[in-house]
Amino acid sequence: MKDDGAITKWVYTFGGGSAEGTAKMKNLLGGKGANLAEMAGLGLPVPPGFTITTGVCTYYYAHGRTYPEDLERQLKAALSGLEKIMDMQFGDADNPLLVSVRSGARASMPGMMDTILNLGLNDTTIHGLVRRSNDERFAWDSYRRFIQMYSNVVLNISQHNFELILQHLKDEKGYKLDTDLVANDWQLIVELYKKRVQEELGVPFPQEVTKQLWGAISAVFGSWMNQRAITYRRLNEIPESWGTAVNVQCMVFGNMGQESATGVCFSRDPATGENTFYGEYLANAQGEDVVAGIRTPQQITISGRNKQNSSLLSMEEMMPELYGKLYDIRSKLEGHYRDLQDMEFTIQQGRLWMLQTRVGKRTARAALKIAVDMAKEGLITREEAVQRVDPMTLDQLLHPTIDPQAQKSVIAHGLPASPGAASGQVVFSAEDAESWVKAGKKVILVRVETSPEDISGMHVSEGILTTRGGMTSHAAVVARGMGTPCVAGAGEIAVNYKAHIFLTKKNLMVKEGDIVTIDGSTGEVILGAVSMIQPKMTGDFGTLMEWADSLRTMKVRANAETPADAATARKFGAEGIGLCRTEHMFFEPGRIIAVREMILAKDEDGRRAALLKLLPFQRKDFIDLFTIMQGLPVTIRLLDPPLHEFLPHTDAEIVEVAKAAGLEPSIVRERNAHLRESNPMLGHRGCRLGITYPEIYEIQARAIFEGAITVTEKGGQPVIPEIMIPLVGTRKELELTKDIIVKTADAVCTAAGTTLQYQVGTMIELPRAALRADEIANGAEFFSFGTNDLTQTTLGMSRDDSAPFLEIYRTKNIYEKDPFATLDTDGVGELLRIASERGRQTRADLKLGICGEHGGDPDSIMFFQKAGLDYVSCSPFRVPIARLAAAQAALGVRDESQK
Amino acid sequence: MKDDGAITKWVYTFGGGSAEGTAKMKNLLGGKGANLAEMAGLGLPVPPGFTITTGVCTYYYAHGRTYPEDLERQLKAALSGLEKIMDMQFGDADNPLLVSVRSGARASMPGMMDTILNLGLNDTTIHGLVRRSNDERFAWDSYRRFIQMYSNVVLNISQHNFELILQHLKDEKGYKLDTDLVANDWQLIVELYKKRVQEELGVPFPQEVTKQLWGAISAVFGSWMNQRAITYRRLNEIPESWGTAVNVQCMVFGNMGQESATGVCFSRDPATGENTFYGEYLANAQGEDVVAGIRTPQQITISGRNKQNSSLLSMEEMMPELYGKLYDIRSKLEGHYRDLQDMEFTIQQGRLWMLQTRVGKRTARAALKIAVDMAKEGLITREEAVQRVDPMTLDQLLHPTIDPQAQKSVIAHGLPASPGAASGQVVFSAEDAESWVKAGKKVILVRVETSPEDISGMHVSEGILTTRGGMTSHAAVVARGMGTPCVAGAGEIAVNYKAHIFLTKKNLMVKEGDIVTIDGSTGEVILGAVSMIQPKMTGDFGTLMEWADSLRTMKVRANAETPADAATARKFGAEGIGLCRTEHMFFEPGRIIAVREMILAKDEDGRRAALLKLLPFQRKDFIDLFTIMQGLPVTIRLLDPPLHEFLPHTDAEIVEVAKAAGLEPSIVRERNAHLRESNPMLGHRGCRLGITYPEIYEIQARAIFEGAITVTEKGGQPVIPEIMIPLVGTRKELELTKDIIVKTADAVCTAAGTTLQYQVGTMIELPRAALRADEIANGAEFFSFGTNDLTQTTLGMSRDDSAPFLEIYRTKNIYEKDPFATLDTDGVGELLRIASERGRQTRADLKLGICGEHGGDPDSIMFFQKAGLDYVSCSPFRVPIARLAAAQAALGVRDESQK
Repeated sequence: MKDDGAITKWVYTFGGGSAEGTAKMKNLLGGKGANLAEMAGLGLPVPPGFTITTGVCTYYYAHGRTYPEDLERQLKAALSGLEKIMDMQFGDADNPLLVSVRSGARASMPGMMDTILNLGLNDTTIHGLVRRSNDERFAWDSYRRFIQMYSNVVLNISQHNFELILQHLKDEKGYKLDTDLVANDWQLIVELYKKRVQEELGVPFPQEVTKQLWGAISAVFGSWMNQRAITYRRLNEIPESWGTAVNVQCMVFGNMGQESATGVCFSRDPATGENTFYGEYLANAQGEDVVAGIRTPQQITISGRNKQNSSLLSMEEMMPELYGKLYDIRSKLEGHYRDLQDMEFTIQQGRLWMLQTRVGKRTARAALKIAVDMAKEGLITREEAVQRVDPMTLDQLLHPTIDPQAQKSVIAHGLPASPGAASGQVVFSAEDAESWVKAGKKVILVRVETSPEDISGMHVSEGILTTRGGMTSHAAVVARGMGTPCVAGAGEIAVNYKAHIFLTKKNLMVKEGDIVTIDGSTGEVILGAVSMIQPKMTGDFGTLMEWADSLRTMKVRANAETPADAATARKFGAEGIGLCRTEHMFFEPGRIIAVREMILAKDEDGRRAALLKLLPFQRKDFIDLFTIMQGLPVTIRLLDPPLHEFLPHTDAEIVEVAKAAGLEPSIVRERNAHLRESNPMLGHRGCRLGITYPEIYEIQARAIFEGAITVTEKGGQPVIPEIMIPLVGTRKELELTKDIIVKTADAVCTAAGTTLQYQVGTMIELPRAALRADEIANGAEFFSFGTNDLTQTTLGMSRDDSAPFLEIYRTKNIYEKDPFATLDTDGVGELLRIASERGRQTRADLKLGICGEHGGDPDSIMFFQKAGLDYVSCSPFRVPIARLAAAQAALGVRDESQK
Repeated sequence: MKDDGAITKWVYTFGGGSAEGTAKMKNLLGGKGANLAEMAGLGLPVPPGFTITTGVCTYYYAHGRTYPEDLERQLKAALSGLEKIMDMQFGDADNPLLVSVRSGARASMPGMMDTILNLGLNDTTIHGLVRRSNDERFAWDSYRRFIQMYSNVVLNISQHNFELILQHLKDEKGYKLDTDLVANDWQLIVELYKKRVQEELGVPFPQEVTKQLWGAISAVFGSWMNQRAITYRRLNEIPESWGTAVNVQCMVFGNMGQESATGVCFSRDPATGENTFYGEYLANAQGEDVVAGIRTPQQITISGRNKQNSSLLSMEEMMPELYGKLYDIRSKLEGHYRDLQDMEFTIQQGRLWMLQTRVGKRTARAALKIAVDMAKEGLITREEAVQRVDPMTLDQLLHPTIDPQAQKSVIAHGLPASPGAASGQVVFSAEDAESWVKAGKKVILVRVETSPEDISGMHVSEGILTTRGGMTSHAAVVARGMGTPCVAGAGEIAVNYKAHIFLTKKNLMVKEGDIVTIDGSTGEVILGAVSMIQPKMTGDFGTLMEWADSLRTMKVRANAETPADAATARKFGAEGIGLCRTEHMFFEPGRIIAVREMILAKDEDGRRAALLKLLPFQRKDFIDLFTIMQGLPVTIRLLDPPLHEFLPHTDAEIVEVAKAAGLEPSIVRERNAHLRESNPMLGHRGCRLGITYPEIYEIQARAIFEGAITVTEKGGQPVIPEIMIPLVGTRKELELTKDIIVKTADAVCTAAGTTLQYQVGTMIELPRAALRADEIANGAEFFSFGTNDLTQTTLGMSRDDSAPFLEIYRTKNIYEKDPFATLDTDGVGELLRIASERGRQTRADLKLGICGEHGGDPDSIMFFQKAGLDYVSCSPFRVPIARLAAAQAALGVRDESQK
């Protein structure tokens, strides 16, 4: 009772064409209760029932586990309402009403009591069920199930007791399966079960149906405070005060003769997305029969039957009137929920009951088609259509995929590091990959891990498989950039380079030249070739992308350095290059020699001479890139990795390099040893190179400026290069390196007798840079967040070394997602927010972007939108994903601000 | 003129027993002007003069480089004041007054005009100077110097012109040195100089002394806006609006006959600190003669003369009256400035002039004695005494130092990584160090770098020399912890392990067994043995420490794990252990085998069996530690380094370890390869070990708890161990590992039938941990900032790899100090502040400490005080430094809050 004397409503009924609740009353009715009320409120034939509110739960615990005074009266009234709708009586010997009792909290909560079915059965009502169902076996089986379930959940008698009894009988009768038992057997089991309950409790199994019902209700409320539920709430931060509701609903049966049936249907085809009614049903069957797959289900529609070439009649043919009703319901539900519906129904003796409807799962292809179709039909807006497609699923539409029908022998698993599937012959080195491909073969490059020297070999391979490294290992990052399928960190595989073989966990040996298939979307490694489905860029894809582009506010750029990558990026809709890693230009043959000469040089003059050899190559690279990008912005990062990455490491290579450089091999070895670092990630790299060897940045800047001038002079779109300094931690580092660039620009312009626009900015990839962003912004026209390195430093976690513990971390829920794939918004994200705010305090028009792996991750993109970034940049193949995710992020942010 | 019509005072006079300004008027008079006024105001015989205020400078630039109307009048008045005091006339042919003109900004500013001497000399007044000085050569030399200086600074004629003339004359006359020139030569030079000026300017060198004066004044004001001054101001953030003052002061000469003299004296002995007047003088000489060291100076006091056993008469004997005056001035100045004074004086024809007084530099020993004495004398307070000693200089008092008189042959330089000097025979491996020492030799261990395996060898060495690594490299950190002298990162030295030699930059070869000396306070490497001064813990040291302890608010703990270190820590006054690194306990023989067994084990059972072998060792370690610390807090960090640090790396070792473990060497190699990491600093270490292998932390916790119970049971002070989890980045990591510890504590207590108090806390050494400190504090009773790792991650800079660029960074002023030695307060410090605030929001009584290298650095300690830390922890040998620095920090903070 409330203080004002008005009687609190504790029970909300639904069914019979109406409902007292709605979908919006989740807090009071719980999720399940609210949804049942919504369906019933639409006038759909939902088996009637009622919900005991969460308020009762709160009362129950506030009052020493007792119920509010008026509850019993309200419950009785609701129950007689059900009896009226169903024309049955609870506890009646002839036509007994049976009910289910279910818990229903606001959020789905494993750990709580779930369901008790067939409540209302006892030694009297069982006979009514036998008669009504005309199926003695089913009736007795239902009764024994009820006893077992109720005894376990409500009466706290261990399942074990009942399992023993059943096993004993089966042994005695020589039965193997439960299905071997006949009606009499189940009747006997019921007797034995009841006896067991009497022995355990000292009192008989409750025969009074109202007592059964109150027992079940109390069990649901009691389960709110059991240990598993408490733990779950603590872990998921669900307040105890929320409480749970209890749903009591009439049982309906699809197995009460040929006038009965049960089925599942979709408002559209969930595989193709076509706007055709689709579903299956079984006559005279229970829901579990459909799932069990013992009988072949029949199609709902004639067209479906024709498609399947089925000899079984469709529901449209068998029960045209009921089909008509179902079809109307399908339209009504899709219209109401404005999305693909996945519905369950039961026909009990000629009467159609809708048991459930929910948003239907669908393939990527179907999701795209349904979203576009529904928007064109006017059912949803374009904004909604854009929000209906999971950006990550676009990957399936952009890469070859393994035919789901194909047989495949999976021999190992790794991380799904770069999407798409590929088959080829196994090779174990980048050199072999190159020579085999030259010889016309297709190869899968298998390495323990890859390094920058392997780039050319990686480029020609169909796919890449590594046994070490995570989602952002070198192999993974480079493969995604190239759009090459990659399975990384397949630790189950032991590579033996000497023997040119690898062994799986089960000691299966795969030799060089054997064919394997890798699926970079799932992480599977498969023996032999497998049939593939090639991607199609259908019209729907283009339409959705167009809508997405019109809605998003963040620009999408690509990380690219080669002309091929740049062209791919443009094809996928990139609006510029957000990260051109100049060091990738250093590894090509003809260049690496000069690079090594530079590193081995004794002094600045020697370095400068070597750099001048590189200049024409780099200039040419930039000319190509600027030409392809046609005036779109191009952000170029100056040399970043530590110099030792460019030096040879094997003895043979050392001798070769020494020879080429005219040096003793010992000199090369010494230089190698001198440059060796304990933690290269935190070593002599980034702008630290530009500060200690200013000539490197000078020549790089020169190549960029000369390239830009050349393109403009040749009549191309005017280029405004954005030069980016990596690994800046202090204002001074940026000032010193910027100084080199500005002086070089002045010199190049003077020499060319022209002027040139350009910008200088910095990566924000160190916590210190984020914290001092206000100072750093004085010298930077843009910030690009290098979230890969920022994640490594903020979390103190090397992406190359984290695989062994990160997997365990994820199982223990320490990080919900791989922080190298999805931004750790709590830690790294806070630094990003701090840097954005502080940077823009100094320079209001500071351009903010992100060029780490997270630039192509939808969850992270949502965060970047909120943080106010101007653009994201990602691998070319991720550009469509980022475009869609950015649109969703823009909509999400808009929706939130409208709340 | 001010708006109110009152006449602005532009000129402030000083001298003649009074002054118009004081030391507090720095903003108006500049630093130099204010100090001269202060001395004159005390009634000291300062050569009279006047200061043209900074206000004139401001006026000058606000009014198109013109002067205020009344300035000329005020200047004239001031000048005639000087003439009156000196009884000389400016521009007079018989008794000419000469002046100096100097700039004087608020802060000392290189890049501005400094000084013009002897202004007032011209073709007429020169004759007066000749007569008065009775030294023709001196007079003409002074005139030509004046012309040269004035022409260069005021008239903008290049020095080069005058140098050529002088060189030409010397060549002509066959002179080698300037001192070869006689009076007539200088007179000729004057003529030639004047001629050159006339040629350059078309007008003669200014003869009118007032014009000379105004020229010099304008040159000073003009130099405020020259390029070098502007750049200096920008770099040092000095506002342009401050302006500079101009000081005009009478010249006095100590070389005008036997009644003249010049000298330098200290109010106390700056070498020993004894309260005796100390100084030297030269009769009939100029200040530069004293500095040049051509003539042997005489002592000021008789006692000084006796001490020096000098045959030359002291000033006390020669000029008893003037000596008396000087002695009085010494007392007056020390009383006024309340600190050791370093004074310069000149006697011109029987008249004593004080040219300068400033706080005197002193040795560490003297600083200590003077501070304690002055406090005892009542001259300063104990608070002031504590603030008078630079904490870093205490190092000199705690370690042997090289005798400053000793001859030494420095063959290389490295970083002064651990203070103190040591001599010994060179060995190149830790094993050799151990065996040589066993054979009774003293050794210096020379390594490229050291690793944890070298610990025992490092322990027995007199000193450690490495050629790679910075101030916080393994060698440096461990050496400081042991109190062993260490020179680190001596890159000039090339070690050849095979040949058992090292080569210096100059190709000097040092062989195994050769004796070298290293000075860990200066970074010098010296060939052969050198005589040393042994440290004395004098009574003054103890007194000052006692005062410091009574003033500081932060506790000081030590980082220690061995009984020896713990005992040293207590001896130096540590109030607990802030960091006990348990991994150091793993390297001793007899343990390392079990550790490796643990790492090589296939499963948890194997690891557990190996760990149980370690348990008695660890328990014994903790019993020893707790016993020595007698109930003082002991913070124990659970295992932190990656496991591969414990595995062998050479082939021989691998075979040995495999044999001991009963495994094939290939298994050890495989495990080695499997554990290898690209960036171990960011790898599988810290609590990541405790989460993936919970049994490691479990057994460690067990050893701690069992040890604590044993000590308590044996009647020792009750121990409250503080268990610290390393490398935590998330709340969950702390919760999971804390859970292991709590369960272990419960189990140990149950088994022992007792209870035990303990705390669980965490290192804050990752940026993420600092940012999420509010969450993490839920599970932590204390935070200990691991500023070494926090610096590495925040700056993205490996301390082991940063030496090659950090040196260049410091020369380019990117970081003012080595961020691994002195906390980067702007970056790392901000994270520390954030973590402290957020942590205490969650838990108001959260204990905060710091256990990185910065815990022993005075500058950093000042920051920690401001950040509200409860304690600092540092190497045992740094404890006295930290105690004193903490007292200064407490006083500094108090003073700031009183402002």
